[in-house]
Amino acid sequence: MKSIFYTRFFILLPWILIVIIVIDIDTKRLSVRNTASFYLSRLGNVQQQRQVVRTTRSSSTSISSSSNSGSNATSLPVIYAITPTYSRAVQKAELTRLANTFRQVPQFHWIVVEDSNSHTELVSRFLTRSGLRFTHLNVFTPRRFKRTGMPRATEQRNLALGWLRGHRSVKDKGVVFFADDDNTYSLALFEEMRSTRRVSVWPVGLVGGRRYERPLVEKGKVVGWYTGWKADRPFAIDMAGFAVNLQVILSNPRALFKRRGAKPGMQESDFLKQITKVEDLEPKAKNCTQVLVWHTRTEKVNLGNEPKRQQDSVYIEV
Amino acid sequence: MKSIFYTRFFILLPWILIVIIVIDIDTKRLSVRNTASFYLSRLGNVQQQRQVVRTTRSSSTSISSSSNSGSNATSLPVIYAITPTYSRAVQKAELTRLANTFRQVPQFHWIVVEDSNSHTELVSRFLTRSGLRFTHLNVFTPRRFKRTGMPRATEQRNLALGWLRGHRSVKDKGVVFFADDDNTYSLALFEEMRSTRRVSVWPVGLVGGRRYERPLVEKGKVVGWYTGWKADRPFAIDMAGFAVNLQVILSNPRALFKRRGAKPGMQESDFLKQITKVEDLEPKAKNCTQVLVWHTRTEKVNLGNEPKRQQDSVYIEV
Repeated sequence: MKSIFYTRFFILLPWILIVIIVIDIDTKRLSVRNTASFYLSRLGNVQQQRQVVRTTRSSSTSISSSSNSGSNATSLPVIYAITPTYSRAVQKAELTRLANTFRQVPQFHWIVVEDSNSHTELVSRFLTRSGLRFTHLNVFTPRRFKRTGMPRATEQRNLALGWLRGHRSVKDKGVVFFADDDNTYSLALFEEMRSTRRVSVWPVGLVGGRRYERPLVEKGKVVGWYTGWKADRPFAIDMAGFAVNLQVILSNPRALFKRRGAKPGMQESDFLKQITKVEDLEPKAKNCTQVLVWHTRTEKVNLGNEPKRQQDSVYIEV
Repeated sequence: MKSIFYTRFFILLPWILIVIIVIDIDTKRLSVRNTASFYLSRLGNVQQQRQVVRTTRSSSTSISSSSNSGSNATSLPVIYAITPTYSRAVQKAELTRLANTFRQVPQFHWIVVEDSNSHTELVSRFLTRSGLRFTHLNVFTPRRFKRTGMPRATEQRNLALGWLRGHRSVKDKGVVFFADDDNTYSLALFEEMRSTRRVSVWPVGLVGGRRYERPLVEKGKVVGWYTGWKADRPFAIDMAGFAVNLQVILSNPRALFKRRGAKPGMQESDFLKQITKVEDLEPKAKNCTQVLVWHTRTEKVNLGNEPKRQQDSVYIEV
């Protein structure tokens, strides 16, 4: 009797476990498909918001009375920096030093896209006080996409591209750049990218396990990539390594970052191949021989001594 | 026989499947652990950078024609920010974003002290192009002090204090602040510290294992410390949490950071008790209820894919 019980138990238990795991995986796959179709359906007309996947979109734009609005500056193309961001201990610090850099860039428009269901108070307050021209958007990344090995900030970058397509026209002169919130930017970088006619590229420091990665240039044309990681990528370049003329974004309304089938490190290539070819890239930063942007990463903060219950007499935003 | 085979098969197969799945999950976890050990190894690596035990002292000062030298600005006390720095992959990136912040502070004088035997080319070139008023110093930390648990940048901070004592007099209005090269500073912080009469204090974010540490203030006086770490320190405050009037530095010529008998985390207390008392501290940032500076830490860079021999056709400074 006992032996039969054990046999049955050992046969049934693992099968039950496997069924549970498989069901779990299947649900996740299913929702991936839903999101993909959601994005595809969104391409043409920007309308369907709440569906199977709950996505909130809201936006607010503020044009501050910037000191850069002089008559000389306004003839310059506007630099639209798209910055995805999410709540974490270092968020305000990162945004602070980013704003300190961006404040010195003439004709600058910051598109900040939060990974959240609504504008957070912290980011709203921060942007209002930043002294920068900004647009504040938000879209929540479904939890199933927040895993190791999955590309990050896809929804946020695509929402920003959608905003540009909805609010800018053929009359507007601009350059679009993807400025992650923990990288380090020199001011010179922005002057390099400002003359982008279609898609420009340059080296990025501290990326791919190397001191830098860069496009290899011969006779003013990109002919290859100096990289230590996945050298077979069509565009072996980091998100911080290129800028796109606003008109290229507008004239390629279906060009987006992919979620379906996207592999880590392939986001840039997947996007760029929709809008350009390697031979058409415009090398900047002295034929791609200067590092003007660094792929810095900030350590996750140790909050091990944070008291469980609020022990301080006041609430302080950090 | 057949029955036994099937029983074994049905018992073994699912367990094998489960083991495969679990191993798969574990490998993903492992990479998280690798990152953790990579942080831990950071301190150790710092020690290995230099070998020659020799101390060189040299200095060069450059006063750039700063835009802050208007008649209004010159009546303000100068903020002397003392920044110890050392060669590493992220050094130029850190100095870049620091300079981007400091450039917006009126009447600012940056004292950069390298941990090196001589001025490095990278830092010299960087400072010359920074557009900031600066003093470039260097002093090499003897190797025996580069150990885990030993206070860092002691020699560099003391050299800067010595420079101030040798180059500034009772006529000079100024405030001295210790600005480590990886922290994050809001512009508002500098306006808070500028009115320091003797020694001023304020909260610091992301330090001591907490969201923030701060002096506790009652009736305009510091009466204690909100901290999660070594609460019995006489001044439970981070290096980024205080500023000292230049005249206090000059009138206490023996006040220095201690090397002999110094314990980690006690540098601030050891220094401050030489020049002030807790009850004399001047609370800033709305009675120490605002976080205007963050103790951010930048990840050590993974250079695992860097080619052993120079493979690129040009040398690029990063």
